[in-house]
Amino acid sequence: MKAYIITIGDEILVGNTLNTNAAFIGEKLFEINIPVIKTSVVGDDNTSILNELKLASSACDLIISTGGLGPTHDDVTRKSIVDFFKTELIESKEVLEDIKNLFEKRKRKVTNVNIDQAKVPNIAEVIRNQLGTAPGLWIEKSKKIYVIMPGVPVEMESMMDSTVIPKLNDKIGSSQTKIKMKTLLTTGIPESTLYERLGNLDDLLNGARLAFLPNQFGVKLRFSVEGDDEKDIHDRLVEVEQRIRSKAGRFIYGVDDDSLEAVVGKLLLERELKISAAESCTGGLVGNMLTNISGSSKYFERGIICYSNAAKVELLKVDEDTLQEHGAVSMEIAMQMAEGVKSTSGADIRLSTTGIMGPTGATTNKPVGLVYIGYCDDKVCTAKKFNFGDDRLLNKQRTAQAALDFVRRQLLGILLDD
Amino acid sequence: MKAYIITIGDEILVGNTLNTNAAFIGEKLFEINIPVIKTSVVGDDNTSILNELKLASSACDLIISTGGLGPTHDDVTRKSIVDFFKTELIESKEVLEDIKNLFEKRKRKVTNVNIDQAKVPNIAEVIRNQLGTAPGLWIEKSKKIYVIMPGVPVEMESMMDSTVIPKLNDKIGSSQTKIKMKTLLTTGIPESTLYERLGNLDDLLNGARLAFLPNQFGVKLRFSVEGDDEKDIHDRLVEVEQRIRSKAGRFIYGVDDDSLEAVVGKLLLERELKISAAESCTGGLVGNMLTNISGSSKYFERGIICYSNAAKVELLKVDEDTLQEHGAVSMEIAMQMAEGVKSTSGADIRLSTTGIMGPTGATTNKPVGLVYIGYCDDKVCTAKKFNFGDDRLLNKQRTAQAALDFVRRQLLGILLDD
Repeated sequence: MKAYIITIGDEILVGNTLNTNAAFIGEKLFEINIPVIKTSVVGDDNTSILNELKLASSACDLIISTGGLGPTHDDVTRKSIVDFFKTELIESKEVLEDIKNLFEKRKRKVTNVNIDQAKVPNIAEVIRNQLGTAPGLWIEKSKKIYVIMPGVPVEMESMMDSTVIPKLNDKIGSSQTKIKMKTLLTTGIPESTLYERLGNLDDLLNGARLAFLPNQFGVKLRFSVEGDDEKDIHDRLVEVEQRIRSKAGRFIYGVDDDSLEAVVGKLLLERELKISAAESCTGGLVGNMLTNISGSSKYFERGIICYSNAAKVELLKVDEDTLQEHGAVSMEIAMQMAEGVKSTSGADIRLSTTGIMGPTGATTNKPVGLVYIGYCDDKVCTAKKFNFGDDRLLNKQRTAQAALDFVRRQLLGILLDD
Repeated sequence: MKAYIITIGDEILVGNTLNTNAAFIGEKLFEINIPVIKTSVVGDDNTSILNELKLASSACDLIISTGGLGPTHDDVTRKSIVDFFKTELIESKEVLEDIKNLFEKRKRKVTNVNIDQAKVPNIAEVIRNQLGTAPGLWIEKSKKIYVIMPGVPVEMESMMDSTVIPKLNDKIGSSQTKIKMKTLLTTGIPESTLYERLGNLDDLLNGARLAFLPNQFGVKLRFSVEGDDEKDIHDRLVEVEQRIRSKAGRFIYGVDDDSLEAVVGKLLLERELKISAAESCTGGLVGNMLTNISGSSKYFERGIICYSNAAKVELLKVDEDTLQEHGAVSMEIAMQMAEGVKSTSGADIRLSTTGIMGPTGATTNKPVGLVYIGYCDDKVCTAKKFNFGDDRLLNKQRTAQAALDFVRRQLLGILLDD
């Protein structure tokens, strides 16, 4: 069984609304191993919807649409369904009951447009809507399945979970092959270097599939294994993971939905260590990331944002002569800042960031993107130089990510030299 | 001219990644009045991409694709383009230069896979990539335009802004019906209250179109006017804007792509004022937002992240008895924090944030979402209570936004009582 997802709605075409519905459905279908071949977005327009239904049913055996089932003038999907299947509308007592109950619960009066929503195409089985007025439709014709749902995300999601996925599972039974997926999260290594490091992918993957997904925080490695036997695919997934880790383990900070700040937080908690940061170029971003994690007050209780030289001297006791000689963006100052935050915080782990984020501020020797990150704990005090890009916001994000990865690697004893 | 957007990438089909690229492109094309007829997503697979290119070019005259141009094995778009146009790859000196410069700047070694990225289809004009290695491609054939871009959002967005939109504007010239659009950015007022405040929309808009676009930072009001005469639509746009401002002016902090932090920064610069923040619950986010603006060092030079009570007492001289009596999340402590940051910073404007971000930390009297924001300048010292929601990250963003809006309103003398 192959799937085609159609999202209906002008607001998505013009970019006002992100297409989270197609993503949600794609993820749910992936979990039961029904491949999505294509997704499309068309406007609230009868001809476009009809064309798309034709195209989809010629390519796939499962067609899922969302959107255009509401009560207002610009909701035309139900009419398109009637036209497409050359059928007619009949009132569903069940749906009418649901609508009346919903309005009663919300202490609102049922309007005529809502009563009209109880009319469904003759050919369709109703998918009940617990959270809104528009029913979903399940239609089987010529060995193809059509699932038509409203576009309001919570309503559609509830229908998928309570009705559509269970019904699809029944249809495909146990015949379908199973699939398992895992994502390894790397940081501090460019996509091309990571790719070369992994070597021959056929040997590495042995039939598994692998995707490289880069963003500003690093490259995600997503791999998946298919098969009939649950245990077998589990074992193969573990094997592939081990092979990837043996090649690039030091760059992998987490799996699936992990964030670096959560991973670092967990390490600090386990070791009962406290962290503090003296932030110049990141301007508070490191503190912000750390405190995005619930419970972070156990290991992060203060930080200093020292954007100016005066702030570095006054709050962190950075040496004015060193500042004069090497400048604020230097290895020396990064180390002094990290050391200096100890007196203010008493934290076990001290971080610092200093750099030129751009677009202005570059000098002959110090280009935009130049960053020093300092790290001190009670045994070691060190700093590392980085060269990021031209974009101010990306530079801040990359610096904060590199600073947190610095902590992760130090705590795990991973060398920083590549 | 009608547009068709193709997004290429398995990760989008299976719902791992939201299709923000199609939304971004849709929005940009809307602004220059090129309607998007359809968008689609297909996997990283040569046959699927070829089919989609055929379909798109039979339906539209502008075809824009993103994705599949990276350096690894699963990036196949360039091959599909070569197949589709029956052309061949030639090395672009310009692109090779860009790639080498990028790697030099980042102090990384150029790998063979990167050098291979400098090969572009013979038929294509190169769209230079300032932020990554994969060049974009601009191809004109049989009166149709094909724009092929990498899938990394920042790279694609930069290409759209710097090259694609200007070139398209040249192409459509003056023939097209004109559309002008403006967005007013509000904060501190819920969508439904704003809607009621605007009154009868037909009277207000007089033929213009209006969309309410809510997000965590506030509600955007986007309105547009169409017509043939440049001056006429300009005048009508100004009229609508004035009518909206007369109803909801105090909530409007900016227009179009403004950010609140840039608006506040400009006010501070104009008045030669310096700002400092004592952040508890926002954990550095206020400082991070302020320093996202280039040139912010002129008005922001330090900040204190005081997550714990001890940090509040030691760094901000908050009174321990008050802390004991009222708790850290209180009007009194918010004011003491804002006042206390003066001694550390000497700044003219002092902000503070203290609150319960959740999901844990609530008490009987203090629910998750309770926030106090303090504000002091040399004339006034005040604080305001807010009740936000249940989501930790949204609560942090809403608090930082409200804190900056507090400054904006104080500087502009706008009452805070609604």
